[in-house]
Amino acid sequence: MTEPDIFYILGNKVRRDLLSHLTCTECYFSFLSSKVSVSSTAVAKHLKIMEREGVLKSYEREGPFIGPARKYYNIGISKTYVTTVTPNLFWYRGLDLGDFSFKKAEIDLTHIPLEHESLPQMVNSFLELTSELEKILQALQAVESRRDRLMKEIKERYLKEIGDMTQLAILHYILLVGEATVDELSDRLNLKEREVLVKAQELDRFVPLIIKDGTIKIDEERLKQKLGGESDAGED
Amino acid sequence: MTEPDIFYILGNKVRRDLLSHLTCTECYFSFLSSKVSVSSTAVAKHLKIMEREGVLKSYEREGPFIGPARKYYNIGISKTYVTTVTPNLFWYRGLDLGDFSFKKAEIDLTHIPLEHESLPQMVNSFLELTSELEKILQALQAVESRRDRLMKEIKERYLKEIGDMTQLAILHYILLVGEATVDELSDRLNLKEREVLVKAQELDRFVPLIIKDGTIKIDEERLKQKLGGESDAGED
Repeated sequence: MTEPDIFYILGNKVRRDLLSHLTCTECYFSFLSSKVSVSSTAVAKHLKIMEREGVLKSYEREGPFIGPARKYYNIGISKTYVTTVTPNLFWYRGLDLGDFSFKKAEIDLTHIPLEHESLPQMVNSFLELTSELEKILQALQAVESRRDRLMKEIKERYLKEIGDMTQLAILHYILLVGEATVDELSDRLNLKEREVLVKAQELDRFVPLIIKDGTIKIDEERLKQKLGGESDAGED
Repeated sequence: MTEPDIFYILGNKVRRDLLSHLTCTECYFSFLSSKVSVSSTAVAKHLKIMEREGVLKSYEREGPFIGPARKYYNIGISKTYVTTVTPNLFWYRGLDLGDFSFKKAEIDLTHIPLEHESLPQMVNSFLELTSELEKILQALQAVESRRDRLMKEIKERYLKEIGDMTQLAILHYILLVGEATVDELSDRLNLKEREVLVKAQELDRFVPLIIKDGTIKIDEERLKQKLGGESDAGED
């Protein structure tokens, strides 16, 4: 798939919602259909478009009950896209994720002058800024590769150790957005607000949360304490 | 305009081509229409959509000849958009350009472990990676703000000092893509290949180029020499 096709895919809210659900877990058709507010015919159409463009892959698998095999979907690309639109610049680039060789980089704009006497000076500064941009894009590609792999591990570990899909969905969402309101989670997970709160309290036993004034986020202080406790235990 | 609308705008090749032409200069309708390969009705429709979404602004101005005022278009947003799509992550963000306070940042992933014993460790590493991501996005916003402003200055200076729109269009394109083929430029500027070459040779007098095997790029070595010459002259 070429980069621009992704803009076409992302240019529709239902498709974005479907993608968002699919990043938490592989889903079968009727589950996905229950999570978005359009007809199942429309969902089928959008899934078909995304499969045709290579954004989704599908496969059949036996369901937990007797009956025909269910069609499951998962996301088939791992990319970060960057685009700039201004009166003077327009470009876009797709970065393939999966490169773990990057260690560190210093982005430094201090040596690039802000004022220029001549056209060649301006062109030279533009080239220097572009070379800093390339370093930034490499760092972006690296950090997203690492976050992608780590989120995969978090999902696998959570399902193996705790096994609660709803708790995982809350954790996944909070890790991605930083902080979520109970209302947001209730809409997204199709649960009552008090059910969200119960599930968040269960999740808190494994990953410390701050649940306050209708918002939920990771409690970084208690998380660090928990990590300190773990390494102390390791030393015994 | 909210971020997702931009995906809708970018999800169409004609709109992308129109945006691309508009970053080099403000354009009036019939000029834009001559640059893309669809009917003028389709161009009018796309311009209207982009104006409605706030991506374009338009205004009327007298043309160089007697007749009705012409409607000109320019790009009305200055943003960088970042989005990641993987089986585990999906997010997007629009960064407002125009912030020049950033100086430097160190992106360092070496202290974030690759292997994890426990779920809290994984969550902690994810938060640390996310905080490196925030630094990367700030750097990206800064470098694109600087490149945007500098490209504006380059355009203004070129038109004031040299005044050739076609030479400027070649320079603008090469600065954005790094290296361009004569064929690409010929398609883009709607010129014959030999006309592209003549214009590139004229441009070379002001901004040194390497024109070789049908490709054109900035000659960084001769550019540095030119800058050295300028500062020597300044010392006399």
